[in-house]
Amino acid sequence: MTPIRVGLLGLGIVGGGTWQILERNREEIARRAGREIVVTRAAVRPQDLERAALKTGGRIQLSTDPLQVVEAGDVDVVVELMGGYEPAKTLVLHALELGKPVVTANKALLALHGNEIFATALQHGVMVGFEAAVAGGIPIIKALREGLTANRIQWLAGIINGTSNFILTQMRDQGMGFSEALQQAQALGYAEADPTFDVEGVDAAHKLSLLAAIAFGIPVQFERAHVEGITKLTAEDIRYAEELGYRIKLLGIAKRTARGIELRVHPTLIPERRLIANVDGVMNAVLVHGDAVGSTLYYGAGAGAEPTGSAVVADLVDIARMTGSDPGHRVPHLAFQPDQVRNEVVLPVAEIETAYYLRLRATDRPGVLAEVTRILAQQNISIEAMLQKEPAAGEERVDVIMLTHVAQERAIDAAIAEIESLESIAAPVVRLRLETLSS
Amino acid sequence: MTPIRVGLLGLGIVGGGTWQILERNREEIARRAGREIVVTRAAVRPQDLERAALKTGGRIQLSTDPLQVVEAGDVDVVVELMGGYEPAKTLVLHALELGKPVVTANKALLALHGNEIFATALQHGVMVGFEAAVAGGIPIIKALREGLTANRIQWLAGIINGTSNFILTQMRDQGMGFSEALQQAQALGYAEADPTFDVEGVDAAHKLSLLAAIAFGIPVQFERAHVEGITKLTAEDIRYAEELGYRIKLLGIAKRTARGIELRVHPTLIPERRLIANVDGVMNAVLVHGDAVGSTLYYGAGAGAEPTGSAVVADLVDIARMTGSDPGHRVPHLAFQPDQVRNEVVLPVAEIETAYYLRLRATDRPGVLAEVTRILAQQNISIEAMLQKEPAAGEERVDVIMLTHVAQERAIDAAIAEIESLESIAAPVVRLRLETLSS
Repeated sequence: MTPIRVGLLGLGIVGGGTWQILERNREEIARRAGREIVVTRAAVRPQDLERAALKTGGRIQLSTDPLQVVEAGDVDVVVELMGGYEPAKTLVLHALELGKPVVTANKALLALHGNEIFATALQHGVMVGFEAAVAGGIPIIKALREGLTANRIQWLAGIINGTSNFILTQMRDQGMGFSEALQQAQALGYAEADPTFDVEGVDAAHKLSLLAAIAFGIPVQFERAHVEGITKLTAEDIRYAEELGYRIKLLGIAKRTARGIELRVHPTLIPERRLIANVDGVMNAVLVHGDAVGSTLYYGAGAGAEPTGSAVVADLVDIARMTGSDPGHRVPHLAFQPDQVRNEVVLPVAEIETAYYLRLRATDRPGVLAEVTRILAQQNISIEAMLQKEPAAGEERVDVIMLTHVAQERAIDAAIAEIESLESIAAPVVRLRLETLSS
Repeated sequence: MTPIRVGLLGLGIVGGGTWQILERNREEIARRAGREIVVTRAAVRPQDLERAALKTGGRIQLSTDPLQVVEAGDVDVVVELMGGYEPAKTLVLHALELGKPVVTANKALLALHGNEIFATALQHGVMVGFEAAVAGGIPIIKALREGLTANRIQWLAGIINGTSNFILTQMRDQGMGFSEALQQAQALGYAEADPTFDVEGVDAAHKLSLLAAIAFGIPVQFERAHVEGITKLTAEDIRYAEELGYRIKLLGIAKRTARGIELRVHPTLIPERRLIANVDGVMNAVLVHGDAVGSTLYYGAGAGAEPTGSAVVADLVDIARMTGSDPGHRVPHLAFQPDQVRNEVVLPVAEIETAYYLRLRATDRPGVLAEVTRILAQQNISIEAMLQKEPAAGEERVDVIMLTHVAQERAIDAAIAEIESLESIAAPVVRLRLETLSS
């Protein structure tokens, strides 16, 4: 069979990794795919042209014009690794309109424009591969979309941002504050100069909106996700959680409930005995709960040149295999047949239900606890565990930590507002969510 | 589209689970597959006919003749869940010859006759799905075969027998001996009356031979695997391993080395910090190391009605999707194109290389350790860690535990033979293998 010819838009970290893999494992990949996959062209930024030429040793035709790569007659598949919204979106749509399949690692693009991109692909009968957009090298899109098709997926919870997981791991292991851990992540190249998308949970929410669509058969709806990052977390709360037998992870959670779908990213306490609680450093993991299979977990590197390149190449192999096939034989982009995607309600955060970790800084005098527990009881919130820390020498305030049973966020909000109005409460209440991830 | 009509051979645990899933999630599955998947017929044993009729409420045509189900005009796909070699093999081959795709959970059948079955399927242009044959509901076949196609797989290591993992977990948590833990597993229904295949590592080796074929592009060759079970393990060694920071798991290991492929099932010490070391009870997990993606882990229920049924149904959805497609578009059964499967050398166990745990029962007198370490040094075996237990009151023997660096099994065998010939060594040396699973 003739080779599949690939045009890379971007030859940076992931583009370089993809190219390296296709060079090094060319034979192994062809033995699987039934045909060779070769990179014929790549578009790079003008300032990277020379370095790219050195790296690829003249084996790829380089250009500074990505449009030229998209349109080239010797490019069958376009791999978009530029990132950002534009010109990525225009180029991807243009490739699809030309009938060229696209592989992309661009979760931000798909989270915001995925519905339009998938509709365009459908219209032109071509595939869009995006395994690399979620959890790097872990084949989680394939597992969820094809491996668990028997199941009604009930929930999933993922550590899907390596940067913030690295920071949280350092905060716990070294007792560091957030800023110090962030600086270390930046020094090691795990965090960008502007880390906002990673530490504020936005990147995780991009990925979560894709996973949720595939899990539940709903459109991609990033804009409805509740997003909280890790910037306000303190080493103190990580330590208290630890004392209670929990780890704090930034989780992306998608849950099906009788009243609608919960879609949220936030720091979360998880029992330390869960495997996913022990996923540390830059590693990623996604836990999926289906009604037939129960819980399954997928773990691996969530970023990096070759792990992400591994996912790009897996998509290329799928595309190579399905080239020329009737579109009816293909796996739908969002797991469900396009006409079966349904607009289910995504619940506002006030209506989610979960357990909570509350930390109160209270005056150390009798009666305070009685008042707090009365307020919680009034909101029908029951207490699962409590930890009171002795005041430090010379201190008048004590930290009281409470773990609640499952309650509605609205009730917790109301209780916290009332608790904060008490004279004996010295500081804003720290509120974190807790998930047992048991069934 | 017209429904895909399924004939079940066997309506026991997995057959029942498969049927339940297809009934309960009929709509959800059709929304993904693009067509309905319905069970039209099932073959059961005469003594189960009445119960089966009750269970399925007359919605399936039941028969005690599996051949009739295979040949029925209203059966498009045959699902073989009878187990054992015959008549399963004859029925599967017959279905394929009739041009009917087959889904099977029968790892024993595929481990021994897989090459013939896959060749027959190829000849008749039909698919054989066997996701359910390895690690129950975990989509490990799909991940390895399609998700990691970019990689040269370097090794994989799996907890792929839930029964033995349950027994090992009980031995560690409760300090039980093997027999007691086995009895408990039997009482709970986790072990069969004749547990040989599970506790002797045979079942794990069946599955391992399938995983290795897919990982490396080699034929299925169960007969070349080295197989050791857990029946000789003692609670003592589990405790000593624990003191040294290791857990003992029954692993199926397939490794590519410069001299050939290692294919082995045996109890293995693993560092307790590895996620896979913390996979307990009847759960399964497979750790796969690819040159591009690094290590990825897949975890979930390895057995049970609905977890295994989940894998059966996933294969049915794949088949439903690909019905009528050109066989060239399909994923090869063993991941590599049939003409690209190569007969690489599988190393005899004497030639494998790994680290070792050795326990010696020695007379507590000076000079013994010097003799032992001299013997190991002569074989070029270096010691990584040593633990000497104080003799119990009134005892003259002490337990000495040594962890070695990586050595060849042949050298370890020679050293053990010599050590056992020492007058000061009181009992056979206990030898376990140790894998760091780090890269």
